[in-house]
Amino acid sequence: MALIVHKYGGTSMGSSERIRNVAKRVAKWARAGHQMVVVPSAMSGETNRLLGLASELAPSRADKSYYRELDMLAATGEQASSALLAIALQAEGVPSVSYTGWQVPVRTDDSYTKARIESIDDQRVRADLDAGRVVIVTGFQGIDPNGNITTLGRGGSDTSAVAVAAALKAAECLIYTDVDGVYTTDPRVVSAAQRLKTVSFEEMLEMASLGSKVLQIRSVEFAGKYKVPMRVLSSFTPWDIALDEEAKSGTLITFEEDEKMEKAVVSGIAFNRSEAKISVRGVPDTPGIAYQILGPVADANIDVDVILQNIGKDGKTDFSFTVNQGDFNRTVELLRDEVVPKLGADEVIGNPNICKVSIVGIGMRSHVGVASTMFRALAEEGINIQMISTSEIKTSVVIDEKYLELAVRALHTAFGLDSAEVSKSA
Amino acid sequence: MALIVHKYGGTSMGSSERIRNVAKRVAKWARAGHQMVVVPSAMSGETNRLLGLASELAPSRADKSYYRELDMLAATGEQASSALLAIALQAEGVPSVSYTGWQVPVRTDDSYTKARIESIDDQRVRADLDAGRVVIVTGFQGIDPNGNITTLGRGGSDTSAVAVAAALKAAECLIYTDVDGVYTTDPRVVSAAQRLKTVSFEEMLEMASLGSKVLQIRSVEFAGKYKVPMRVLSSFTPWDIALDEEAKSGTLITFEEDEKMEKAVVSGIAFNRSEAKISVRGVPDTPGIAYQILGPVADANIDVDVILQNIGKDGKTDFSFTVNQGDFNRTVELLRDEVVPKLGADEVIGNPNICKVSIVGIGMRSHVGVASTMFRALAEEGINIQMISTSEIKTSVVIDEKYLELAVRALHTAFGLDSAEVSKSA
Repeated sequence: MALIVHKYGGTSMGSSERIRNVAKRVAKWARAGHQMVVVPSAMSGETNRLLGLASELAPSRADKSYYRELDMLAATGEQASSALLAIALQAEGVPSVSYTGWQVPVRTDDSYTKARIESIDDQRVRADLDAGRVVIVTGFQGIDPNGNITTLGRGGSDTSAVAVAAALKAAECLIYTDVDGVYTTDPRVVSAAQRLKTVSFEEMLEMASLGSKVLQIRSVEFAGKYKVPMRVLSSFTPWDIALDEEAKSGTLITFEEDEKMEKAVVSGIAFNRSEAKISVRGVPDTPGIAYQILGPVADANIDVDVILQNIGKDGKTDFSFTVNQGDFNRTVELLRDEVVPKLGADEVIGNPNICKVSIVGIGMRSHVGVASTMFRALAEEGINIQMISTSEIKTSVVIDEKYLELAVRALHTAFGLDSAEVSKSA
Repeated sequence: MALIVHKYGGTSMGSSERIRNVAKRVAKWARAGHQMVVVPSAMSGETNRLLGLASELAPSRADKSYYRELDMLAATGEQASSALLAIALQAEGVPSVSYTGWQVPVRTDDSYTKARIESIDDQRVRADLDAGRVVIVTGFQGIDPNGNITTLGRGGSDTSAVAVAAALKAAECLIYTDVDGVYTTDPRVVSAAQRLKTVSFEEMLEMASLGSKVLQIRSVEFAGKYKVPMRVLSSFTPWDIALDEEAKSGTLITFEEDEKMEKAVVSGIAFNRSEAKISVRGVPDTPGIAYQILGPVADANIDVDVILQNIGKDGKTDFSFTVNQGDFNRTVELLRDEVVPKLGADEVIGNPNICKVSIVGIGMRSHVGVASTMFRALAEEGINIQMISTSEIKTSVVIDEKYLELAVRALHTAFGLDSAEVSKSA
């Protein structure tokens, strides 16, 4: 029997009926002899409701004291759902107690709304586990060095669950969600997409960072750092499914590079619709222009993703990069008003109608020609590539947004990921 | 300029628009140079919503671990409203910070759902006040010696506000509510009821305990113990009413017995519809029967109010008392099944259709004949008195519920409390 951490998302906690089902599922694991820690999200809609109220009242200029209050506010959602789950477990006859982030405590820095976990004290939780209780720990939140409540950002409950699992050296961290695992790509885009039984944590990291919304990226980083075995599985299977079957379902995120890397070169196709491209044209081709352009962007707290600098011609060059669509207008204004005049560049051109499509696979490390297969597949569909970015285990291209589905389907087939292909080769 | 505590009820905090109005009112006080601490209740309906979810999931047998979770759950309502008020104040340009009960900390015992405040640390709050911030402290909650969240019971935010005012030695604690003060009786029953400009804390204590719902009784006890000047006033006046006018409005609860006691003998008529009467008939008239009957009732955690034991006759007597209507069935069953057989009494008779009407006045201490005036007024209306209970500053009668309005009106007139009467004598 082992120490297991379960994490349930907002949809799973969305009503008293659903909370009761979560309690029955957890009770099944507890009765099988496992020591159980459960990390629930807020009931679905609750965080949005709270932040909606805040935005109706918000000051015109947000500062740190405002973000502090946002965290104070948002953290109540998980506190409520945790208490409700403890109550539901007690109703199932399973002794249970819930703890907020500050009660555990989960210590974080003071970066309100996106705090980072620094340490987790396992004493209180362990004492309850040893006393035979199921322990509920609020997801998404912690306490800063001055005793203020912090939150970890959207999807932070995944990170809480993995961090708690790491602190307790749990045998496995099960992330129950509204999908039944990690797929080769989004099944809504490619109907032939198939579920991966295992995926390496590095691949998962790339997929999460590339826009696959199954897991918060920081939870995967955490799992990688502390080698926490992590499984993504469906919360929509009946709660009374056999435990053995449930324990093997979904997708396991592994840390051992097993023989799998010999099989599939590319594990999945990820994509992201929420980026926008910005180009500065006619930049004097002198050393330091990347810093002169992106320095002010970074100072304005804007994240930059893909970066591209063309070869110069006639002493001038073009410089392009992508940002989140939410930062698009702000970035264009910043460059136009402050950077272009100072640099003596020609103009700023923005294009919000782009998307990023990526192939991800740990096998790419040891295989040549993967990128060229990608480019050929796209060329055959007549899709123009605007930008390219590569890492050891992924290759991303920026293309016109209207080609997104076409590109994903073409790549899914080109790399032999369609279910039919796979069963053929099996 | 002084240190002032404001308390706002759930109705005042019921929407973002209303929270904004509270912020504007508090900002007015802060700009006038006062150091401000504000204690808000949860947004109206929120506590009921949360406890409703809990009751859908509740175990059939509630124990301490269940009540602990209820407090964990219910405390989120005030945490959210406090953060929202801090945000609204920041939007008004007033620096503000909110603290939960455990952050202050407000230390309580561990009687979940009805915890008692043991101490309040004023250091953190005072540091913020000195730094020019308005401090929001969540009402209704605290932390027990083991770091668990506790709540103070329904209406507990009044008590929080007074306790915070006492800890900070505030100049005044202003309770903003949906009535504009304390009245001689409920204006919905007697249209001639008038607002009291001042009322002694002892009178207020009796009125609160007798069913007047303006203030939670424990807040009045607290105010009395720590001599916190307390004012009940309306949150429905426009927020931009002149501060001088606002500061004198409503009803002040005083601790000095001023010349007022020479004027009105009776300050108000209180009443309570929510009691029920239980009689045990034919009890053997031996020493200790009160204990034999009420001991098991107290053990079942049932509060008893008025108690009456008739003079015995033929070695038998009748024993009657009142309980809250919510405890009525439970009490009758308890007596019928356990107490009557053991005592050898004849029978248990219950009557839920009664009410209690009381006259309250600090002047009763030094005036004779007040009770007889009361009894005469009721007799003239043909109202039969079932039970009588007296204290130094109040006399209560239990009567048939259908006579409630008639009795209250008759007494209001008999003691010269009707507005017309007062203006005549003025």
